[in-house]
Amino acid sequence: MTDSFESSDSVRSGRTLKYAQYITFDEVLHLEHGGELPQVTVAYETYGKLNANRDNAVLVCHALSGDSHVARHEEDDDPGWWDFYVGPGKPIDTDRYFVICPNILGGCRGTTGPNSIDQRTGRPYGADFPVVTIADIVAVQAKLIDHLHIYQLLAVVGGSLGGHMALWWATYLPDRIKGTIAIATSPRLTSQSLAFDVVARNAIIRDPNYHAGQYYDHGPGPQTGLAIARMLGHITYLSREAMIEKFDSDRFNPRDIRTEFETRFSVGSYLAYQGDRFVERFDANSYLTLSMTVDLFNLGATPRELADTLGRSQCRWLIISFSSDWLFPTFQSREIVDTLIHEGKAVSYCNVRSDCGHDAFLLPNELDSYGEMMRLFLVNLDDDTPKTTQWCAAGPEKCCDSAMQNPTSIFHQHHRLDYDSIVELIAPGASVLDLGCGNGELLARLRERGHERIMGIELDQDSIKTSICRGLDVVQADLNQGLSAFGDKQFDFVVLSQTLQAVHDVPRVLSEMLRVGIESIVSFPNLGYHEYRRELVEQGRAPHAGSADGYNWYNTPTVRFLSIADFEELCKQQGYHIHRQVHLDTQAGHRVDEDPNLNADVAIVVIGDSEGNMQ
Amino acid sequence: MTDSFESSDSVRSGRTLKYAQYITFDEVLHLEHGGELPQVTVAYETYGKLNANRDNAVLVCHALSGDSHVARHEEDDDPGWWDFYVGPGKPIDTDRYFVICPNILGGCRGTTGPNSIDQRTGRPYGADFPVVTIADIVAVQAKLIDHLHIYQLLAVVGGSLGGHMALWWATYLPDRIKGTIAIATSPRLTSQSLAFDVVARNAIIRDPNYHAGQYYDHGPGPQTGLAIARMLGHITYLSREAMIEKFDSDRFNPRDIRTEFETRFSVGSYLAYQGDRFVERFDANSYLTLSMTVDLFNLGATPRELADTLGRSQCRWLIISFSSDWLFPTFQSREIVDTLIHEGKAVSYCNVRSDCGHDAFLLPNELDSYGEMMRLFLVNLDDDTPKTTQWCAAGPEKCCDSAMQNPTSIFHQHHRLDYDSIVELIAPGASVLDLGCGNGELLARLRERGHERIMGIELDQDSIKTSICRGLDVVQADLNQGLSAFGDKQFDFVVLSQTLQAVHDVPRVLSEMLRVGIESIVSFPNLGYHEYRRELVEQGRAPHAGSADGYNWYNTPTVRFLSIADFEELCKQQGYHIHRQVHLDTQAGHRVDEDPNLNADVAIVVIGDSEGNMQ
Repeated sequence: MTDSFESSDSVRSGRTLKYAQYITFDEVLHLEHGGELPQVTVAYETYGKLNANRDNAVLVCHALSGDSHVARHEEDDDPGWWDFYVGPGKPIDTDRYFVICPNILGGCRGTTGPNSIDQRTGRPYGADFPVVTIADIVAVQAKLIDHLHIYQLLAVVGGSLGGHMALWWATYLPDRIKGTIAIATSPRLTSQSLAFDVVARNAIIRDPNYHAGQYYDHGPGPQTGLAIARMLGHITYLSREAMIEKFDSDRFNPRDIRTEFETRFSVGSYLAYQGDRFVERFDANSYLTLSMTVDLFNLGATPRELADTLGRSQCRWLIISFSSDWLFPTFQSREIVDTLIHEGKAVSYCNVRSDCGHDAFLLPNELDSYGEMMRLFLVNLDDDTPKTTQWCAAGPEKCCDSAMQNPTSIFHQHHRLDYDSIVELIAPGASVLDLGCGNGELLARLRERGHERIMGIELDQDSIKTSICRGLDVVQADLNQGLSAFGDKQFDFVVLSQTLQAVHDVPRVLSEMLRVGIESIVSFPNLGYHEYRRELVEQGRAPHAGSADGYNWYNTPTVRFLSIADFEELCKQQGYHIHRQVHLDTQAGHRVDEDPNLNADVAIVVIGDSEGNMQ
Repeated sequence: MTDSFESSDSVRSGRTLKYAQYITFDEVLHLEHGGELPQVTVAYETYGKLNANRDNAVLVCHALSGDSHVARHEEDDDPGWWDFYVGPGKPIDTDRYFVICPNILGGCRGTTGPNSIDQRTGRPYGADFPVVTIADIVAVQAKLIDHLHIYQLLAVVGGSLGGHMALWWATYLPDRIKGTIAIATSPRLTSQSLAFDVVARNAIIRDPNYHAGQYYDHGPGPQTGLAIARMLGHITYLSREAMIEKFDSDRFNPRDIRTEFETRFSVGSYLAYQGDRFVERFDANSYLTLSMTVDLFNLGATPRELADTLGRSQCRWLIISFSSDWLFPTFQSREIVDTLIHEGKAVSYCNVRSDCGHDAFLLPNELDSYGEMMRLFLVNLDDDTPKTTQWCAAGPEKCCDSAMQNPTSIFHQHHRLDYDSIVELIAPGASVLDLGCGNGELLARLRERGHERIMGIELDQDSIKTSICRGLDVVQADLNQGLSAFGDKQFDFVVLSQTLQAVHDVPRVLSEMLRVGIESIVSFPNLGYHEYRRELVEQGRAPHAGSADGYNWYNTPTVRFLSIADFEELCKQQGYHIHRQVHLDTQAGHRVDEDPNLNADVAIVVIGDSEGNMQ
């Protein structure tokens, strides 16, 4: 169990910050909630080299209990709290980027916080340390960036409370960052997460050793309260699954540790250890200050408020959440993503499958998925040359691999005949939303053709990863849950290619497409194709429509079977106008003009909710 | 917000137990973990009348902070902690049953607990009160039942910790109960839930006012620690959704209450209020004792251990969980249910849709669903006359209503022609498992015919409710997730009638059926039917196979289309043997003998994994 005792500790106890640099700003800092600080010192560490253009800097923001030591500086250095993700050749590649990580305002690892001496009194601030918000923390980070003579950061990256900082940079200093990576974060805490913070703070401030915050001269300080707070925090960082995995097999066999806490159960000894260790390295007033900072953070409670804040951003976005994170649950990342979509921002999003809970963002378990997405997102930010279909830093094999493994992809050949027709049907330069975009092949072809505003929606995590690796803007979402984030007529074209047959609620998806797009393009396998008719009539067998590559009636991803005539009738019923149609016999490899319901195996139909320009 | 401040409080502060009766047992009680108590007093309340046969008694077990006052005794009485569910005409109907609710051992509301005087010392037990387990609590409850001259209880009912008692009664006193209703409970806590208890206990025992448990002579006792414990508990009783609903709109507007706790946020004032009120009415040592009782409860960690304990039961079971309960999550009720299934016990189960979290079991929100299931389960226990299809205390209209609303039901007429054939294919007296049993019509017909070991699986909550109302044993489960709970060849027949076409992974469901049943009966719509062929060939349209009642290709629950020939080929591929087949033309209303793949719209096929008795 020794290893796991370390997993959530973002700072090692007793370590000195050997590589930290310090800068003190002597002007008074006026804080958002009215307080002020006569001067502010910032402790920070840097990695890699700032290039001549000063445009390769990445700011990494730590979470509540972190510090400036994000990664080791040399091999025998102490590991940093994000050592798996930051370093030479790692996702945030210090061979390529100049990485800056400052300890945040209100912390206790070198930057001004409650345990710093207030020069006006000669004593530590203690409970007199003013309320600090994310705005204040970012203001101090910006001073540091100014001091380093950097105007535009390549990216700001952060998870949890660090994610709040990334959101703030993007929103309130929009011209100063090119990209934002916000991980396991939220527009504001859920009431549940806030409630845990309230209980934790009460445990500290009601500890008799708290002495109204001036415990520095009174012995040990509120150690019990701080340990209780940390124990509680730890439960919220882990998922239920992770706790079962960690503690269920030896539930009644606690680890033998010296502590005054109850250690009757294995999880009890784990929590007692975490509580005791935390007290050795963290200041209770910093905990109170930063816990309140998290709780006060509020980018908006409603879609309208969120649009007002996030709408100011100008950067490209990568949002990552973890499926088992219940402290910053997935739906909160979706709120951010949905707002950015609605505001027409360039955003990619993945809800990474993980059993590790909130802790996933610090652990190596999802390095291959979220780490690689971060790496390629940064590479694409950095590289302004036009991307081609072949452009994929993960290597074309890797892209192809994951595309080929996507079980919802109907046609598994690399070149899709229907894409040729779809591309032709889209006006040059038009904006395009591709629903069920797979590995992004159609979008990549459109980008090659010069389309700038293009975006994809896809459910499969591997396909999302491949698309992000290609530098495309793709969002992980389930079409069956609608397109509510999108505004009316937000795209010139909405494409649903070879996906209609896997959709359960067809009328809803179609009506959403027609709402969001000026025109919509739907392609689907035609059940009326002569070969399919023959299978049923002559052989008495279920047609293999939409089931290439060895699928059969009992395992095909196709759940909707329709002919061109069926589709036309549905359009008529719903009042949709068919603008153009292209019909293909992909098995023979040509277009079909005559009696398509009999002769075509694939139909491509352009529809709209008005008459459009009939061609 | 006043109302909600009450919702989770199972006891009102300051109330006297006006209707409680007391009985003292003077013999020494030897406890499971080695301690002993020289005498035990039990406080209890009763409702309704014990009948002449002494067989209408229902024991209600309260949870951690409850007491004997489960319901009001007269109109102007204080409401009880389960007032919505217990009383004249209510689900646990005191006009019909003799309801007994004792305060549990270790509590602080009349039954012997840590604040009782130890007659050996003349002082309260305090921290010297011995460790008490569910076995001990149930032993004391059994003494009370003996004292009331009741041998067999009609049922034991309990939620949460009270559910643990119900599980214990069923398992270790199997001949003394006829039925068990276990609500929002588990075989043992998750490590996550246990971890919260550990933190809560540590907050109490590290409170300087705890005085090693002998605080009774030292002023107020560990009020801060107990309040912190209660605050934490409250978070775990509510779902995330419920907390958003309750606190999100006025997050920054706390209620103005007198408290020494932080009340900066609305949820903060709520928790502070709950903490302060709890301290007024509950004893910290009782909290520690009963919290440890919950944590030590362990009916088994593995399926084998659970089979060893739950396998001893002889009663009928109703298990209820709530979808948003994360303290006693759904999967834990499923562990109990799966074990009971495996052991061949008579069990019904429903995972009630609810946003109310663990609290749902105390609130009126799900009265119509879980309250009615309890009511009818008890009525069916009580009533030993054979049930008929018409027998349904909720009224036939109600049953039919919910059955008709079931969107996954293919044929909506009340009498299903295919059932006649299926019943004929089943040997008299055979045991039958009906997969996707809907409102239980087929099972009810089999019961009328004298079949005793019959059981259903269904996904739809309303259908489950209707089936339970009919007195059938039905378990809520998704066929797509397999039948892993069932043993090999556990039933003579497994039936899948008109459900195959809505199943995604057909081969898996079939192979599971063949594993669990000696024979399996599958009925499905035949795509080869001449009318369906005509629709495709002559009209070029998707056949309406399996889509009665106005469904169309774009909204039908049917996702698998197959002909009889397709099914036969799959059986051949998989090595399944077809024992018998019956073919129907339900549109014409007769059986089909000639060329069924052309002339039948429904096929009923009996298959097995051995050759069987060909007929």
